[in-house]
Amino acid sequence: MSQTLLLPRWLLTMKPGEDTLEHHALLIDGERIAAIGPRDELIAQHPQAARVELPEQILIPGLINGHAHSAMTLLRGVADDVPLMDWLQNHIWPLEKRWVSEDWTYLGSRLAAAEGLRSGTTYINDMYFFPTAMARAAVDSGVRAAVSMNVIDFPTGYASGPDDYIAKGVAAYEQYKGEKLLDWTSAPHAPYTVSDETFVKLRDLAEKLDIQMHCHIHETAGEVSDGLKAHGVRPIERLDRLGLFNERMIAVHMVHLNEAEIELMASKGVHLVHNPNSNLKLASGVMPLKALAAAGVNTLLGTDGAASNNRLDMFGEIRSAALLAKGISGDPTVASARTALEMATLRAAKAMGRADDLGSLEVGKLADCVAVSLDSLECQPVYNAAAQLVYVAGREHVSNVWIGGRQVLRERQPTTLDVPALLAEVRDVVGRMQSA
Amino acid sequence: MSQTLLLPRWLLTMKPGEDTLEHHALLIDGERIAAIGPRDELIAQHPQAARVELPEQILIPGLINGHAHSAMTLLRGVADDVPLMDWLQNHIWPLEKRWVSEDWTYLGSRLAAAEGLRSGTTYINDMYFFPTAMARAAVDSGVRAAVSMNVIDFPTGYASGPDDYIAKGVAAYEQYKGEKLLDWTSAPHAPYTVSDETFVKLRDLAEKLDIQMHCHIHETAGEVSDGLKAHGVRPIERLDRLGLFNERMIAVHMVHLNEAEIELMASKGVHLVHNPNSNLKLASGVMPLKALAAAGVNTLLGTDGAASNNRLDMFGEIRSAALLAKGISGDPTVASARTALEMATLRAAKAMGRADDLGSLEVGKLADCVAVSLDSLECQPVYNAAAQLVYVAGREHVSNVWIGGRQVLRERQPTTLDVPALLAEVRDVVGRMQSA
Repeated sequence: MSQTLLLPRWLLTMKPGEDTLEHHALLIDGERIAAIGPRDELIAQHPQAARVELPEQILIPGLINGHAHSAMTLLRGVADDVPLMDWLQNHIWPLEKRWVSEDWTYLGSRLAAAEGLRSGTTYINDMYFFPTAMARAAVDSGVRAAVSMNVIDFPTGYASGPDDYIAKGVAAYEQYKGEKLLDWTSAPHAPYTVSDETFVKLRDLAEKLDIQMHCHIHETAGEVSDGLKAHGVRPIERLDRLGLFNERMIAVHMVHLNEAEIELMASKGVHLVHNPNSNLKLASGVMPLKALAAAGVNTLLGTDGAASNNRLDMFGEIRSAALLAKGISGDPTVASARTALEMATLRAAKAMGRADDLGSLEVGKLADCVAVSLDSLECQPVYNAAAQLVYVAGREHVSNVWIGGRQVLRERQPTTLDVPALLAEVRDVVGRMQSA
Repeated sequence: MSQTLLLPRWLLTMKPGEDTLEHHALLIDGERIAAIGPRDELIAQHPQAARVELPEQILIPGLINGHAHSAMTLLRGVADDVPLMDWLQNHIWPLEKRWVSEDWTYLGSRLAAAEGLRSGTTYINDMYFFPTAMARAAVDSGVRAAVSMNVIDFPTGYASGPDDYIAKGVAAYEQYKGEKLLDWTSAPHAPYTVSDETFVKLRDLAEKLDIQMHCHIHETAGEVSDGLKAHGVRPIERLDRLGLFNERMIAVHMVHLNEAEIELMASKGVHLVHNPNSNLKLASGVMPLKALAAAGVNTLLGTDGAASNNRLDMFGEIRSAALLAKGISGDPTVASARTALEMATLRAAKAMGRADDLGSLEVGKLADCVAVSLDSLECQPVYNAAAQLVYVAGREHVSNVWIGGRQVLRERQPTTLDVPALLAEVRDVVGRMQSA
């Protein structure tokens, strides 16, 4: 197996309790991390390893995007400054009904993968239709993804009804079983689009396949009040009665939460995905991060889709999460730089059920590593390299990325994708959509 | 005089009522805009003009940073995750007392100018000490600045007391009078650091010199309650009684405002600078932008200093302002992309008293132009180029900048500054500060 020594100026392993290391090296052996130690020692011990000098760069674990709809890059900016339900019902759903296909999904998902790589994202918890297209896009891009077996109760161009969605999801799962870059989720779209019966089927499917679940919950105040009208209880209580909440559940948005609901999330071990920029843009509100932290709830970060954010930029989400939690709570010590970074790494790996392999740079874990350059004038001077990542650096400073030991971004160029060809295809498809 | 034709794919003039133009050209003649029109027509009419092709780029007016402390780039990231008064009293002020000098200010201000140029900032409303250093840095960088005659009631390494600050400010003003890149402000630091007597002197100074004022007001809840205790009225009422509020006043932060105060700002024509990221980071709160807009108050955007933001990135402030106003108010139509861009251009020019010359691309105005490239995969596809600037593009997509017709950024490289030499000097100074 080939060995590579990464030689950054700073190394932030995100191992609990470990501060930023300087002049350390990380040894990749095959797809895993084989050693971490002082630079000179590791060079002496592994003279045969290839060396990658990363001067003025900080090496961190790959970022995990806890919630995305990758293919929606093709709808980036199609409708801005409108509310969620108007946006969904009058803009997004009609466009999706008309255009979404296996090919469209494969194209948009590769664009998202490329955008992710160039912003240090090595794992995407992806919710969309056409799981075979999502799976192919991830594998072809060399990016990890959790592919959704997504279900919505009404028919789309993808499937005719709940049983058809489930059957197609399971078929895709069977087809790609064993593919190392992929995880799978059982993914009811949301309380307002999925019936009790379907929720129960998807709960049982997750148990049977031993996979995580992925669902939008309590995104808007309207969703909560409408759910209360329709079912006599708030959506969270409805789902709790259906047995949906446990450590398999990755609950997305969770903006509108009362104290009892926060306690419930903590006691059941549910993982909550904060999408700060999407929630602001659609005027949904702000997740109560301080209260969730106090209750001990595991929280992670996501971008949401490019039609509602409109950037698949985990650096932006990390920064926004840290700033917003302080500004809203009035407490500047909340969501420290370290905590915000954990929400995109270690805490996210736990949510995906992958904490043994991912989320920190430790010997034995998979070599998903991101190098970020701090040498540009925007990033100078550097007093604290870890805080600089959160409050100063942007995705444009990501220089090199490895996933499972394979270099997938080199000096900001994806090694796995033909970007000019990809963009030509995007322009062609979008041109057809616009002239239709 | 030399003529240059800028030939962008899109042209967003920010002229009220005018949408994004496609395939138009802008003619620079000397320091001003001489013509705007369809590309082919302008090329035919001005065959002698130099041509700058800007394919897949959008040309916009130069961005105006409504509030900065430029020299504090040298303190970027020196203390994060702490509250404002702790941050000021235990971190920033002791460091400033020890280190700030004419040379230090000149160095930090040039670093800020370079960061500003690379993010499309052509005008900085700058508040700091050592105005001659601030003035030299702006002029040497080719960037417009409003230099502060800054006053704080206690002694610093710069001046011994209010009269000394004022005398030094006026001397600098006299020295640089007539310098075309510079404006000046009469700048009491804040209600909690400036006495009534000094406020009145600075009010009269602004009248006498016919310049704007620049002051931090109502940044934190603590400032308001402390002011109430000390003076029997809230700071805004105190300053109103002193006759401080009129169209000369640029009031910075203004996070904590009641209805009467919002009405007062509207009736007096005060200009309010929103610093969304600094206010979040220091947990000060969020300016009530929706209510201010409803009252008709002129609002603009600023970065604040790099010690509290920590980016001098107007693209970041534009995006944050648009997102935050929606998320906080629950109204996604508030702070539209167009409005947020106005807050960094036309509305800001009005606040600076420069609406006749700056803030939009119109014939006769000064040629302060910024080209932003939308061709990278992160910015594709493009449905609406203006919205793409706000919700998708980042400062890293700024390609070329002209100020007063002079090209000061070419393919992301400042033409006016030796960046490697500047960074070497920064590292040297910061190294000495850290080892002291």
